[in-house]
Amino acid sequence: MKPTPIKVTILPEKKTVYVLPGTNIVEAAGKANIPIELPCGGEGTCGKCRITVVEGNVPPLPSEEKLLGKEAISKGVRLACQAKIYSPCKIHIPEEIRISAQKILTESIEGEKEVCPSIWKYYFKLQPPTLERNISDLDLLRRAVPKKFFANIYVLRELHNFLKTHNYQATGVFSNGELIHFEEGDTTSEAFGVAFDIGTTTLVGTLMDAKTGKDLSVSARMNPQVAYGADVISRIQFAMNSADGLERLHFAIIGTMNEMLKEMANVSKVPLKKIYKIVLCGNSTMQSIILKISPESLSSIPFSLVVREGIEVKAIKLGITINPDGTVYVFPNIGGFIGGDTVSAILSTTQYKAEEIKLCVDIGTNGEIVLGNRNRLITASTAAGPAFEGARISQGMRAMPGAIEKVVFTDDVLISTVGNVPALGICGSGLIDTVAGMLRSGIIDETGRIQPPKTLKGRLSDKILERIVKKESSFGFKLVDGDNIGNGTPIFVTQRDIRELQLAKAAIAASIKILEKKMGITDQDLSEVFLAGAFGNFIRRSNAVRIGLIPNIPFEKIKFVGNAASLGAKLVLLCSTLRNTIENISTKTEYVELSLSSDFQNEFAESMLFPNPISIKNKAP
Amino acid sequence: MKPTPIKVTILPEKKTVYVLPGTNIVEAAGKANIPIELPCGGEGTCGKCRITVVEGNVPPLPSEEKLLGKEAISKGVRLACQAKIYSPCKIHIPEEIRISAQKILTESIEGEKEVCPSIWKYYFKLQPPTLERNISDLDLLRRAVPKKFFANIYVLRELHNFLKTHNYQATGVFSNGELIHFEEGDTTSEAFGVAFDIGTTTLVGTLMDAKTGKDLSVSARMNPQVAYGADVISRIQFAMNSADGLERLHFAIIGTMNEMLKEMANVSKVPLKKIYKIVLCGNSTMQSIILKISPESLSSIPFSLVVREGIEVKAIKLGITINPDGTVYVFPNIGGFIGGDTVSAILSTTQYKAEEIKLCVDIGTNGEIVLGNRNRLITASTAAGPAFEGARISQGMRAMPGAIEKVVFTDDVLISTVGNVPALGICGSGLIDTVAGMLRSGIIDETGRIQPPKTLKGRLSDKILERIVKKESSFGFKLVDGDNIGNGTPIFVTQRDIRELQLAKAAIAASIKILEKKMGITDQDLSEVFLAGAFGNFIRRSNAVRIGLIPNIPFEKIKFVGNAASLGAKLVLLCSTLRNTIENISTKTEYVELSLSSDFQNEFAESMLFPNPISIKNKAP
Repeated sequence: MKPTPIKVTILPEKKTVYVLPGTNIVEAAGKANIPIELPCGGEGTCGKCRITVVEGNVPPLPSEEKLLGKEAISKGVRLACQAKIYSPCKIHIPEEIRISAQKILTESIEGEKEVCPSIWKYYFKLQPPTLERNISDLDLLRRAVPKKFFANIYVLRELHNFLKTHNYQATGVFSNGELIHFEEGDTTSEAFGVAFDIGTTTLVGTLMDAKTGKDLSVSARMNPQVAYGADVISRIQFAMNSADGLERLHFAIIGTMNEMLKEMANVSKVPLKKIYKIVLCGNSTMQSIILKISPESLSSIPFSLVVREGIEVKAIKLGITINPDGTVYVFPNIGGFIGGDTVSAILSTTQYKAEEIKLCVDIGTNGEIVLGNRNRLITASTAAGPAFEGARISQGMRAMPGAIEKVVFTDDVLISTVGNVPALGICGSGLIDTVAGMLRSGIIDETGRIQPPKTLKGRLSDKILERIVKKESSFGFKLVDGDNIGNGTPIFVTQRDIRELQLAKAAIAASIKILEKKMGITDQDLSEVFLAGAFGNFIRRSNAVRIGLIPNIPFEKIKFVGNAASLGAKLVLLCSTLRNTIENISTKTEYVELSLSSDFQNEFAESMLFPNPISIKNKAP
Repeated sequence: MKPTPIKVTILPEKKTVYVLPGTNIVEAAGKANIPIELPCGGEGTCGKCRITVVEGNVPPLPSEEKLLGKEAISKGVRLACQAKIYSPCKIHIPEEIRISAQKILTESIEGEKEVCPSIWKYYFKLQPPTLERNISDLDLLRRAVPKKFFANIYVLRELHNFLKTHNYQATGVFSNGELIHFEEGDTTSEAFGVAFDIGTTTLVGTLMDAKTGKDLSVSARMNPQVAYGADVISRIQFAMNSADGLERLHFAIIGTMNEMLKEMANVSKVPLKKIYKIVLCGNSTMQSIILKISPESLSSIPFSLVVREGIEVKAIKLGITINPDGTVYVFPNIGGFIGGDTVSAILSTTQYKAEEIKLCVDIGTNGEIVLGNRNRLITASTAAGPAFEGARISQGMRAMPGAIEKVVFTDDVLISTVGNVPALGICGSGLIDTVAGMLRSGIIDETGRIQPPKTLKGRLSDKILERIVKKESSFGFKLVDGDNIGNGTPIFVTQRDIRELQLAKAAIAASIKILEKKMGITDQDLSEVFLAGAFGNFIRRSNAVRIGLIPNIPFEKIKFVGNAASLGAKLVLLCSTLRNTIENISTKTEYVELSLSSDFQNEFAESMLFPNPISIKNKAP
């Protein structure tokens, strides 16, 4: 009997997700895009990740009873990293255990001389000029406002009339040392801005109250440039070779960003004209296209950038429909294809300040890897992504409703789909789970070859054996029968799909090895491994280690950091002094061109193999 | 017999002017808009203003023979301040005795820490990026260019393609710390800019080589806003009360400036796109309209400014058709109607650095007066002008061809017109000459009343007496008979015209008195009086003193400084560090609101009288 995924409602926002039986609360919350802080790495030893079960039954583990005490347990308190879900429930996740921009900001700005919000408002009451005290409007304002500022011609044209109409009392809006607008009355308690993470495939925007650091609304869309090519290389080609190619890519993405802004403004009831700032990060190609700077220089050796540094541009010059005097700040890049999203991730993980050496792996359409600490940071980019996003996989798809996103091997196979709807295909995390399961059960060997079922007889259950089916010249592994699913076609993981996964994970693993060699360390020197990117949240650490995607280190050292790029953009939105920090990250981080490394092909070939199970030091999942 | 004006050709530019017999060379040169430096104030004692008579006979004075020696005299050398013209001649005026922006600049920038041209170019040869040295284009440029700069998005969009096309070698054009453009090859020897003096009535533009400080071409036009009102008050009313009034005034003047730019570009063969900078000064109303900032705040008490400080705006934002990335710098104002032209005059006369107290009188459509030295500067504005520009005078006209611009009393009256064409009317300088002559000959008394001819009989020649003619209830003074002149109508100065002149000169004189009182000085404490403005050049100092327009001090202390406002704009074009100087002038100079002075009406009434001849200390003209 196929187990029904279980409905979990998260309070106070009443978000609903569906999980397989035995899923822990951290993972369930991750599905709802609510990252939880795990100081002990999810080992259940620190007791910090306390949530409350408000409705339903979540059985406590003995370790929880010991740590929390009987009274708390009876009141429904559980540890999010330990407690597992077996039946429908409602759980309350308190604010203080959630990973928020405001919290990370506190850590990030430690040591900054001055915290300067990127939108600064000042309420003034001026004495109107008289014959005896005949001072120009702008000079009156300069005397009242405690900071130096520049005023553009458009604001100056409105100045007198605005002051006169409002009795010389109003709120000035300042951005990056420029007086950009006036608002009636005292509006200093409001400051709205949007942080954008521009992925090759997905765009995520967050409308924030820059004063409190609170997210007001979030919008996510598919990058409309997907119509012009799945990866950055094909888009660069399109920009170069099609008539108005760059313009079409530019207007496509700006158009979608404007839709997202409108949506967020509507949801939060914040007028677009009150949004004064956008902070945006993406890979170097995306950032270049948004600025309408041709990405041509990235199309051939030496894959150099036109602009590395961060850029601030008036929103109106990019056609972005926030307040026309508002500005868009685009992150600095590092070099080549390593763009602002990597800088942003380095900021939000605080890797640039770490004493110990850490590794951050961001698996998107491109894979970006950052290794190091406050003394040295090195980074590389590898075109690993498509397989993890479902591309080039025979029945692959992105993590959209109907995608098999989790696969658990028992005496049979349990699956869970995004949105809990009938399966339509398989996405990256489901593929990793499947291959890890096939490795553990011996269905594939370390070379990745699917074994004929007859050689496995007696070692596996019949239900599992039945799933190994002859497909063309090799075998495939059937996840779902045709009659159970959305489009009537059974879903297989084929031998070819496994090869694609091997190529993809080898690219990541080899890049990590090259960086480790450059740094003169081994896996064992890593104090932590961060899994970043939306995709990172959905990977089971044990399975990622089992297939050799990430280094074989104890699980508690592997941390999900969610959308680290988006978080970094939020931080800069809240604190513009961090711009110096990210410029430093941008110039200090070494960009490793893998094609220059003579070792890369070697490492890549080695990494094609799956790890030998004996070498896996972690316990089973 | 009416004397024929004499043709004088000035070399090397071959400019031709016509002068009355007995005119000195300084005055003739002034008519050709060539101001000459007179270190001794034109007393003939320093011997610096040496010119050469190349053709014709200019008789030497004994004083010249003594100072210059016989050999020099025989070679045609004369002193411009002494030698008088009685017959047609060609004279060569050497560069070194001319007042030029470059010379004044040398004096003005004395003590400045750094001379920074407002257009700065840098020729670079970059090493293109390689895989091993993978540096962004902008970073390559930053490393090569020895100054920090900002680069706008439009330049960044062109950067890579430009560098690639030109083998990473080109000239960067920088303005005010911004990289605004690239030029092919090494163009560092070229730097073009335009200085504009925007008068209420006249616009003057000078296209300059900002590298050498040389004027390349000059263009002058009538301010097209004249169609909307003769003075600033009527234009402010138009801006406020007509539909699109401000826009119409703005586009009118921008349109004419663009025509002037085109004309200058054509004459000098400098492409408009190679002009990167405009420096512009005018009164506060004109500057406001050019910036399209409503001058409404100047329409009523307290006549305050919206913006006092200097402003730099992209040319394209004002619709000015130089290089679109070029900028327009508009001078700071002082207060009320005292605008950038006064600041500019204070800069070019170096009054702000003077040890001794000086007075500068600029008589345009408005009269602006500046009194003081490096310790204190005070200024006032008075609506004196229209009479001096021919307005409200029965047969008045501006100094255009046909205007009587000079009148000499002998046993009859000699006149000279602009352009040496038949007379059509009288302009300001001709009116002052006429009234001064009538005062000296006793035709008018100190109250300004024209005496009946019968009371003058025996004291004046018959030819002069015949010119005093009954006009309505009083008398008029006939300058030209109808049959001798352009439009067949005789030209008179009427009793009413003399009253208008009295009102105008009283406004100036009373303002000077108020400023002197504020400063605690008298006329005798003035070390110099500067006559500024195009009109100033045409006034005979003796006559201006005789009618009481300017203080009664020795003539050698009265200096013509020509278009001081235009010169100041040129200085700032050549040296942008002077912007700090003019900001200091702008904030330090005290603006005296005459309407707040209880003394003003008193002084004004007193100044209506003409000075008693005994009190005039100077010798006759």
